[in-house]
Amino acid sequence: MDVEEFREFGKASVDYIADYIENIRKKPVLPSVEPGYLKNEIPELAPITGEPWQNILPDVDRVILPGLTHWHSPHFHAYFPTANSFPGVVGELFSSGLGCISTDWQSNPACVELEVRMMDWLAKMLGLPEHFLNESEGPGGGVIQNAASESTLVGLLSGKQKTVKQVLEMNPHLTDAEVKAKLVTYTSKESNSSVEKASLLASVPMRLLPTDADCRLRADLLQEAIDKDKAEGLIPCCVVASLGTTGTCGFDDLEDIGRICEKEKIWLHVDAAYAGAALVCPEYRYLLKGIHFVDSFNFNPHKWFLTNSDCSAMWFKNTKDAEAAFKVKASIPTEPLFEPEIENWQIPTSRKFRALKLWFVMRLYGVQGIQKYIRHQVSLAKYLEKLVKADDRFELLVSRLGVVGFRLKGNDYMTQKLLDKITERKNLYIMPYYFQNKLMVRFVVCSRLTEKEDIDFAWNEIKSIVADTYFRDSNPELKNKKRESNLNSTILSKVATSTFSPELNEKLKVGLFL
Amino acid sequence: MDVEEFREFGKASVDYIADYIENIRKKPVLPSVEPGYLKNEIPELAPITGEPWQNILPDVDRVILPGLTHWHSPHFHAYFPTANSFPGVVGELFSSGLGCISTDWQSNPACVELEVRMMDWLAKMLGLPEHFLNESEGPGGGVIQNAASESTLVGLLSGKQKTVKQVLEMNPHLTDAEVKAKLVTYTSKESNSSVEKASLLASVPMRLLPTDADCRLRADLLQEAIDKDKAEGLIPCCVVASLGTTGTCGFDDLEDIGRICEKEKIWLHVDAAYAGAALVCPEYRYLLKGIHFVDSFNFNPHKWFLTNSDCSAMWFKNTKDAEAAFKVKASIPTEPLFEPEIENWQIPTSRKFRALKLWFVMRLYGVQGIQKYIRHQVSLAKYLEKLVKADDRFELLVSRLGVVGFRLKGNDYMTQKLLDKITERKNLYIMPYYFQNKLMVRFVVCSRLTEKEDIDFAWNEIKSIVADTYFRDSNPELKNKKRESNLNSTILSKVATSTFSPELNEKLKVGLFL
Repeated sequence: MDVEEFREFGKASVDYIADYIENIRKKPVLPSVEPGYLKNEIPELAPITGEPWQNILPDVDRVILPGLTHWHSPHFHAYFPTANSFPGVVGELFSSGLGCISTDWQSNPACVELEVRMMDWLAKMLGLPEHFLNESEGPGGGVIQNAASESTLVGLLSGKQKTVKQVLEMNPHLTDAEVKAKLVTYTSKESNSSVEKASLLASVPMRLLPTDADCRLRADLLQEAIDKDKAEGLIPCCVVASLGTTGTCGFDDLEDIGRICEKEKIWLHVDAAYAGAALVCPEYRYLLKGIHFVDSFNFNPHKWFLTNSDCSAMWFKNTKDAEAAFKVKASIPTEPLFEPEIENWQIPTSRKFRALKLWFVMRLYGVQGIQKYIRHQVSLAKYLEKLVKADDRFELLVSRLGVVGFRLKGNDYMTQKLLDKITERKNLYIMPYYFQNKLMVRFVVCSRLTEKEDIDFAWNEIKSIVADTYFRDSNPELKNKKRESNLNSTILSKVATSTFSPELNEKLKVGLFL
Repeated sequence: MDVEEFREFGKASVDYIADYIENIRKKPVLPSVEPGYLKNEIPELAPITGEPWQNILPDVDRVILPGLTHWHSPHFHAYFPTANSFPGVVGELFSSGLGCISTDWQSNPACVELEVRMMDWLAKMLGLPEHFLNESEGPGGGVIQNAASESTLVGLLSGKQKTVKQVLEMNPHLTDAEVKAKLVTYTSKESNSSVEKASLLASVPMRLLPTDADCRLRADLLQEAIDKDKAEGLIPCCVVASLGTTGTCGFDDLEDIGRICEKEKIWLHVDAAYAGAALVCPEYRYLLKGIHFVDSFNFNPHKWFLTNSDCSAMWFKNTKDAEAAFKVKASIPTEPLFEPEIENWQIPTSRKFRALKLWFVMRLYGVQGIQKYIRHQVSLAKYLEKLVKADDRFELLVSRLGVVGFRLKGNDYMTQKLLDKITERKNLYIMPYYFQNKLMVRFVVCSRLTEKEDIDFAWNEIKSIVADTYFRDSNPELKNKKRESNLNSTILSKVATSTFSPELNEKLKVGLFL
C-alpha cells in the first residue's frame, strides 16, 4: 500500500467511522449471531497475495458489524463506560501514525515530556494533592498505565517491596522469602475482581472484607482483620480501597481507612477506575477526604474521561517505592538526563505515545467541556431514578453517579424475568447485580451519545416488558417461583441456575470488570 | 466536536501522517531539544474552554515534532524495529473508532472470534505446530497480549502455578508458601532485561546463565545449574529461551534445552519477540527445531510484522495451565457459550479489538508480501555486512537477520568515538553493545522505509566520521587511551564512565528492550 492509497483508505475509514457513529442509535445494541458464526465467514488461511484495500470495508460490514456488541450505542447500559470521543480517536490515529514509542528520555523526548506534563494537567483538573504532581519538588508523580488491573498490580507490588524492605531493616535475621511468605493484603468484597486477581499475580493473599449498607469497606472490620493477622504472625502489607465500586459505585472512606494504614504502615492503593473522572467537578471532591493517606491512586481516562483505550492514569506519593519494585538495576548508577524517569514505574519497558490522546481530549473539550459531559451523564441517571421512583411496581436500590440499581418489588423471579427479556429483545444491554441480597437491574449511563430520549426509550422498553404476559400474570405460584432454568438470555444463562449469593456476585463481578 | 468536524479533523490528520511519512527521510533522525524543553511550550494548566481542532496540527508541528525521535526514519537503526505500516495504522483507527472492547464472548462476539481466527492464521503463517492452534482438538491456543514483557510474565506465572500444583500433589505435607519459596527459574545472560524483570514481578528468583560464542544458552550449564539447585532443595520451575536475543540476535537451541525441560518437568517459555516474524519465511523454520518441547511461545507482530503497537502474540501448548493461574474462579462453574475463553489467558480482564489490525495487515500484504518485506530487510543487513567486510579498518562481529554488529579494529576507544560522533551528528540512530568483550556498533535495519540508498547513506556517514580528525590522528597515546568522560552523545553519556563489563551490558540491555 503506497502513501496515496493510505490517504484514500484512511479517509474512507474516517467516513466509515463517522457514519457508524451517526447511525448507531438505529441498530439493536446486541448482535444476533450464534457462537462460532465467524468461522464460516473468514477463510482458514491468510491470503497468499495481498488484497486491495477496497476489499476491507465491505468485509467489515459483512463479517464484523453483525457480530459486534455496540459499546457506544446510546442503549448500552452494561459494565461501565468505555471512552470513545472524536478527539480521542484522532489522538489514537496520531499516536499510531507517528508510530513513535519511548523507553527513557533519550529514546524520545517528546513522548516522555508530554506524558509528564499531561499527567500534571490531569491531576490539577481532578483536584488531586500537589504531592502527586510530576512538577512538585518531592518524589511524587504520575504515569499512564495500560489498565486498572495493571495499576492495581503495580500498586500491590510497590507496597509489597516497601513492606519487605521495612521489615528486613527492623529484623535483619529474617530472609526475604520468610517475610514474603507472611504478607497479607486487604480489600472489600465489593471491590473489582481485578483486585483479587492482582493479589494472585503478586503472590500476596488477600482478605475480602464485608462492607456496610452503602458498600463501603468497614474500618472497624479492617482493623479487626489486621489485629488478628498480626496476632498470628502475619505481616499486613497493602489495602486496596475503591472510589466507585463495580457493582453499585460505592465509595470507601479514605480518611477512616487511611488513618489505619498510616498507623499500621500499610500501603494504601485507591482504585477509582470509573468514578475518578467525576472529580473534574468540584462538587464530588469531598470523596477525596483522606487522600493525603494514599500511596497510589488510579483512575481510567479510558472509562469516563473521553480518552480512547488504553489510558489508565496512576499517581504515586513516592515514586521511589515503585522504582525499587520495577527498575531493573544496572550495576553502574548513572545520572539521568531528565527526571522523572516514568519508564521505571511500570511493567513493560517501552511505552506508546498515549499522552497525545489526553492532550487532544483535554484541549478540544476544555475543563468546562468535560465537566459538562460528566454532569450531563449524571443528570440522565437522576432522570431514570425519578422515573423508577414514580412507578410503584419498582423499588430503587441505589443511584450514584451514572449507576442506577432498581428492581421489581417482590422476590427475585420477576426481576430476573425482566432482565432476561431485556437481553432477549436486544434493544438494551443491561446487567444484573446482587445487592443487599436482592437481584437488581444494574443500569449504567455509558455511551457519550446517550440523551434523555434514550433514557425514555430504555424505560419504555422496560415498562413494555413488565406489561407483557409474564408480568400481567397474577398467578401467585408463578410469582413466588424460584428462578427457572429455561432462560434464553446469553447473559443470564450464566447465572440462572443458582440462587443469589455472595458467590454469585463474585461471578458477576468477573464479568463486570473492564 | 461534532461528526462533521471529526470528518475534517480525521482526514486532515490522515494527510498529516501521510506527509510526515513521505518526508521523514529528510529529517535528522534524532531531535536537538534540551531536557525539559516542552515545559516552556505547553501551559501549566489545561484550557478552561475547548479549543477548535484547527489549533492542534500547528501545535504538533511546533511542540511535538522538534522533540520527536523519528522511529520510522530510514536512518533509525537502534533497538529493534517497531511496526508501522499503513494497513496497521488504519486497523488501529478502526479499532479505536468502533471503540469496542470485550471480556467474554457474550460481551462482544466479533472481537473474540476474530482474535481466535487471526491467531490461527498467524500460527499457520509462521509454521508453528498444530497443537498451538485455537482450532485444534487439544487444549492449545493463542491470544494477543500487550507486550513481550507481559507475555514473559504470563509464561512464568503459568509455569509457576503448574509446578506448585505438581509438587503439592506429590508432597501433600508441604504448604503452598513453602513450595513457592523454593522455586527457581533460568535464562541466559543474553536474554532481554524484561525477562529478569518478569522474574522479579513473579517473585521467582532467576539464574542468568552464561552463553556460548554464538550467544546461545548452554544446555550443559543449564543442566548443571538445575542439578545444583535440586541438590540444595530448590525447585526448578521455568526456563525462558530466546529466539533472537536483544544484543546480537542469538538463537537458543530449543531442542537441547527442551529435552532438559521435559526430563525435569520445567515450563519452557520462548521469547521470539523480534525474530519470530522471520518464521513467515520457510528458510528460517529450522530455528523451530525442538518447538514441540515448548509450553508457551511469544513473538511481537508490533515489532517486525508490520502491525502497529500494541500486538504481542502468545501461544500455549496447554491453555488450562494459564487458566489455572489467571482465571478468577467463580464458585459456580458455568458452561461457556464459546470456547476458547481467551480472556482467561491474560492479566487484564478486558481486551481491545486488536485482531482488526492483524486482519488488515495479513490481508493487505498477503503471506508473500510479508515474506518479501522480511527478505528485503535481511538483504539490506547483508548488504551492510558486505560493506563492512570490504573495509579493512573494520571487523564484523555478528550478522543475523536485520542485526549487524561491527567495530573499528583495535581497542574500544575508536569505536566509542565513532558511536559518540554518530549520535552527536544526529543523522543516524545506532546503539552500542558489548560482545565477546568488545564494544561494537549494533546496527539494526528497523524502518519499513529503509532502502539500499539508506544503507549507503549510513555507511558513508560512518566512513566520513572515521575519516574525521579523531580517526586520522595516528597518535598512539590517543588510540590506546581508555574511554574519556567528555563525551557529548546523549546515549553514550550513560555508559561513558565505566570500562566494558557484563554489568555494562545489563545496563545497555535495559535501554535496548522494547
